[in-house]
Amino acid sequence: MGVVVQNIRRTDRATADAFAEFGVATIHEAQGRKGLLAPRISPIYPGARISGTAVTVSVPPGDNWMVHVAVEQCQDGDVLVVAPTSRCDDGYFGELLATALHARGVRGTVIDAGCRDIAELTEMGFPVWSRCASAAGTVKETLGDVNTPVVCAGQLVEPGDVVACDDDGVVIVPRRKAADMLQASRAREEREAEVRKRYAAGELSLDLSDMRGRLTEKGLEYVDQPPED
Amino acid sequence: MGVVVQNIRRTDRATADAFAEFGVATIHEAQGRKGLLAPRISPIYPGARISGTAVTVSVPPGDNWMVHVAVEQCQDGDVLVVAPTSRCDDGYFGELLATALHARGVRGTVIDAGCRDIAELTEMGFPVWSRCASAAGTVKETLGDVNTPVVCAGQLVEPGDVVACDDDGVVIVPRRKAADMLQASRAREEREAEVRKRYAAGELSLDLSDMRGRLTEKGLEYVDQPPED
Amino acid sequence: MGVVVQNIRRTDRATADAFAEFGVATIHEAQGRKGLLAPRISPIYPGARISGTAVTVSVPPGDNWMVHVAVEQCQDGDVLVVAPTSRCDDGYFGELLATALHARGVRGTVIDAGCRDIAELTEMGFPVWSRCASAAGTVKETLGDVNTPVVCAGQLVEPGDVVACDDDGVVIVPRRKAADMLQASRAREEREAEVRKRYAAGELSLDLSDMRGRLTEKGLEYVDQPPED
Amino acid sequence: MGVVVQNIRRTDRATADAFAEFGVATIHEAQGRKGLLAPRISPIYPGARISGTAVTVSVPPGDNWMVHVAVEQCQDGDVLVVAPTSRCDDGYFGELLATALHARGVRGTVIDAGCRDIAELTEMGFPVWSRCASAAGTVKETLGDVNTPVVCAGQLVEPGDVVACDDDGVVIVPRRKAADMLQASRAREEREAEVRKRYAAGELSLDLSDMRGRLTEKGLEYVDQPPED
Amino acid sequence: MGVVVQNIRRTDRATADAFAEFGVATIHEAQGRKGLLAPRISPIYPGARISGTAVTVSVPPGDNWMVHVAVEQCQDGDVLVVAPTSRCDDGYFGELLATALHARGVRGTVIDAGCRDIAELTEMGFPVWSRCASAAGTVKETLGDVNTPVVCAGQLVEPGDVVACDDDGVVIVPRRKAADMLQASRAREEREAEVRKRYAAGELSLDLSDMRGRLTEKGLEYVDQPPED
Amino acid sequence: MGVVVQNIRRTDRATADAFAEFGVATIHEAQGRKGLLAPRISPIYPGARISGTAVTVSVPPGDNWMVHVAVEQCQDGDVLVVAPTSRCDDGYFGELLATALHARGVRGTVIDAGCRDIAELTEMGFPVWSRCASAAGTVKETLGDVNTPVVCAGQLVEPGDVVACDDDGVVIVPRRKAADMLQASRAREEREAEVRKRYAAGELSLDLSDMRGRLTEKGLEYVDQPPED
Repeated sequence: MGVVVQNIRRTDRATADAFAEFGVATIHEAQGRKGLLAPRISPIYPGARISGTAVTVSVPPGDNWMVHVAVEQCQDGDVLVVAPTSRCDDGYFGELLATALHARGVRGTVIDAGCRDIAELTEMGFPVWSRCASAAGTVKETLGDVNTPVVCAGQLVEPGDVVACDDDGVVIVPRRKAADMLQASRAREEREAEVRKRYAAGELSLDLSDMRGRLTEKGLEYVDQPPED
Repeated sequence: MGVVVQNIRRTDRATADAFAEFGVATIHEAQGRKGLLAPRISPIYPGARISGTAVTVSVPPGDNWMVHVAVEQCQDGDVLVVAPTSRCDDGYFGELLATALHARGVRGTVIDAGCRDIAELTEMGFPVWSRCASAAGTVKETLGDVNTPVVCAGQLVEPGDVVACDDDGVVIVPRRKAADMLQASRAREEREAEVRKRYAAGELSLDLSDMRGRLTEKGLEYVDQPPED
Repeated sequence: MGVVVQNIRRTDRATADAFAEFGVATIHEAQGRKGLLAPRISPIYPGARISGTAVTVSVPPGDNWMVHVAVEQCQDGDVLVVAPTSRCDDGYFGELLATALHARGVRGTVIDAGCRDIAELTEMGFPVWSRCASAAGTVKETLGDVNTPVVCAGQLVEPGDVVACDDDGVVIVPRRKAADMLQASRAREEREAEVRKRYAAGELSLDLSDMRGRLTEKGLEYVDQPPED
Repeated sequence: MGVVVQNIRRTDRATADAFAEFGVATIHEAQGRKGLLAPRISPIYPGARISGTAVTVSVPPGDNWMVHVAVEQCQDGDVLVVAPTSRCDDGYFGELLATALHARGVRGTVIDAGCRDIAELTEMGFPVWSRCASAAGTVKETLGDVNTPVVCAGQLVEPGDVVACDDDGVVIVPRRKAADMLQASRAREEREAEVRKRYAAGELSLDLSDMRGRLTEKGLEYVDQPPED
Repeated sequence: MGVVVQNIRRTDRATADAFAEFGVATIHEAQGRKGLLAPRISPIYPGARISGTAVTVSVPPGDNWMVHVAVEQCQDGDVLVVAPTSRCDDGYFGELLATALHARGVRGTVIDAGCRDIAELTEMGFPVWSRCASAAGTVKETLGDVNTPVVCAGQLVEPGDVVACDDDGVVIVPRRKAADMLQASRAREEREAEVRKRYAAGELSLDLSDMRGRLTEKGLEYVDQPPED
Repeated sequence: MGVVVQNIRRTDRATADAFAEFGVATIHEAQGRKGLLAPRISPIYPGARISGTAVTVSVPPGDNWMVHVAVEQCQDGDVLVVAPTSRCDDGYFGELLATALHARGVRGTVIDAGCRDIAELTEMGFPVWSRCASAAGTVKETLGDVNTPVVCAGQLVEPGDVVACDDDGVVIVPRRKAADMLQASRAREEREAEVRKRYAAGELSLDLSDMRGRLTEKGLEYVDQPPED
């Protein structure tokens, strides 16, 4: 009733790192609008953008023992992903655990529960994406699992998957698809750069993406506002 | 099943712009505590304060096609107001659309759904008031309406109404009442400046607003704390 | 149907003030994980950390009359704690009341309802912990109580208790236990400083807190990831 | 600051009554998927289905005075629609008010707030659609409006509009469109009866509604499940 | 870190039992609109109405060990009141614990968390008021407290207090005030019976409670609806 | 961008059917407290208990086209499991689709979105577990997937898995573990029958499960209530 899977296969380091170049929205689009965590997960401070490989932790409500167990399984370039087995807002993660993770090169933490020591984590620059701030401490009594597949904020995460995070939220890229998705993200970014330039110059998406015909076909009508009574 | 109303009557530009001088709370009070959007709508970054004239968009869940259609209807000084027909947290609006709106002089966007590209929007200084951050993209398959009356976050918004936004939220001022409400806001602001000065000097509202008599009449009692056991 | 209790017993000033030295998470742990307000209460701007003695206010929904009554009961070093009798998101508290409280030396406000004038409060540096931002004004029609015990965000608060607040939330320390809890917080802080140093040097909590034996006893298994298909 | 509009124009009685023959889902579809209240509004007991003409009430949080004022404006065949100006879960409406309304021939109540006396209302068969059950009483101190347009659970309701309610929720039909919408509902009901028969006989909507071509065109692929490892 | 208080003082049995004669709304009004649990607490099946004396349990998230400890402290006429120390939706309570409580004469359970075995509890007629249905089981690892004061769904409950529950929710009557509140409830019930009779006969509260003068004084205006355009 | 997987491997019919003999709570416990959907999913009417094999559908917000596609993939003994790609409360499923599914021997539907035609579904006895009731209709414009793994209400569901549902909620049993879990459920049920008998006779779990020693060891103290002041 408690397993730690060791020596997991991780996405190639260079690939996993390269995702931090793109926004979460771009990656999400590039992989066909899949992989996004629910929007209840948000960053504890604005402006961070990271990517890395998932070390997953399944924890009971109000118990962060397995997070301590998971630290040992983390290495440079990882992102810790913590999922409670039932809804819990407690502060499983704070500045001490962040210090331990930081010493191992971990990039950040994603947790579908509460985070504490917000001020200290902000100051040390260790980013966390969480459900809420909560000073509520947890116990160390019940086992869970490390590096088994988990569902975090409605999304399946397998150990070694890419985790990419920014102000918009968190997206998961499956390990086997990472290289392709990186390329797709880059292609999308390039297309968007072109579009951005033309939008800035006043062009309309109606023309640029040739929408007018299909709108008419669906029955869109343009009318003038009737005069006032 | 899809209408775009063109050439709407807008609140006079100078009037609409002048509301940005006041806080949303002041305007809300000035018009008899009406017109406020529900508090689930909040700014994507702190410190912005804008006002402008509403261009309204009614969108299906998960579909932002009509937002693209609406861009063309926007002009300098407008605020885009987007209301889904049923609850949806997806990221309908991001940096590309903001670029297109910015090119037309639009002041900002209010949306009872998700917003994405938070970091980019913050950097470019295009303010959005939304329900949540979400990287989730949307499709372009189903029609909706532009510049028809919508209910956004519990509030009726008609095209051309004044939309005023700050860190406290969003308030709507009906077009026909705008001039009067501007005057009322200014009057309120002046009264408050006087009150602020006297509060800062240590005066109490109990005296300043002469509340003591009415409190006594309603039965308020002052008692001393009983000694401890 | 409306009582103001005067001349309440407060926690000793030096003791109450000293709690601001510690984070809310530390104080919460030090007193056996008790006293925390629900995580729906959050600061209106990041970075504030205060402590003080509670002046409590029980208010009806949408009516802030008793907050005005409470101002007179406040003195240097107090924190105003406002609890509605049923859920209400309205903006009971804003910059004018803050000005009046500031003139009396009040440190901040905790309210399980809405707060308005966020921009102005941020600028004047008067911190508020609230349920949401809302510009919605309130009336002055119905009595409530000042300085009676209240339940605020799920936590019992008695007048004169210590209220400590930071980015993680709000914790209450009962007046009679304040001196002991201050000592316990200090002791905890010192232990954590030592732990932090060792974590930063790469030591694991598994070893430092000697968890390995108990984990094995509970049945934790370490396995290697099986090879891929 | 408080208006009662008398002698409102109501939808024709026979028309308003006839809507009770149809489910809310049917009416909603028939009028182009418009007019539905948010799904947070649900019936206090299962099995009721009513329709009638709206008498609207705008109430402050925690204050049901205007509901008492509204009773006098109600007549046979009406449905009372109550909308608080800001979120409030209090029990504005209970068995005594229901008794008064029942005496006037009112069909039921829709309220975006709490309802109390659930057991008694169930026993007397007076249906209420509300946000929650709550025994919390309200005061009678502040004015609101009767028979002005209100937004209730995200939907604009004008006095005299048709209100139709069943286990699925509540839909509003604007007075001027009521006759047309009644006909559209009837037509839809007939079409559905035919479809129901064919579905029951095992026919598929894929064939009946001729969807296969459009699905293929959009790119839908049918594949067999690959064999297990 | 875990206390069971034995031999608590309970409200007199006859008094506690007599409250079941009244609705929760009546009791809540009778004691000045105090003592109500938040409306998130609702009955698992309709139609139950009970009253009894509180045995309180404070439990950690996801751990129902102390509920088992509490059973032994229960006696005929009690109501078990369970409050987690932080939000948790797990199913702490089900049919086996209900069987044990039923054998001791306990009237029902109030829990600000999940309940399971809804079908079985309904069949055996053991009523529970809970936050939600959830089959999620809990562990037995961490201590809590029995018969200390708890805050349950925002309300302070002391052991031995009266707990009254019906379809509208749950209200707490402090032990020392129980006799007075029983009398006040009875008086209120009698007044309401009279009012009910007059409402049923078509009298208006506007006249019965003589509201018209005060409404006019506050500024209420009666106007006719203007003719249509 | 849209796949239908045909000829899926299903759990053996007899095994899948046999789970309906047990409550969801029992099955959840028997498989080590795994597999439960979030408690926001509840039955549209009380008293149904079913089990069957999952046919999964991934749908865009506000679009039920793929549900129509999925009907054809269903056979006798299946349970339809519908998961939107982002939160949506619309009424994707109603009585017409239920008629089509019923004709194919489908046992019921689980949907993390809205359900409509509650009264009709109740009457025909087709059970649905959903997030809410909503009459809001959906469009048929965008593809999704049938019989790919989905996350529904926080739980991974693979096609062919066992889905068991009752008044407590919904639990998933992976296909490969179904036979073992059935046995485990039966064993647990037998143990509980024995425990139930002894609880009913007044025995305490403290004795029956021999908890007293471990409670003392953890530090539980029994004290008498101190006399009143």
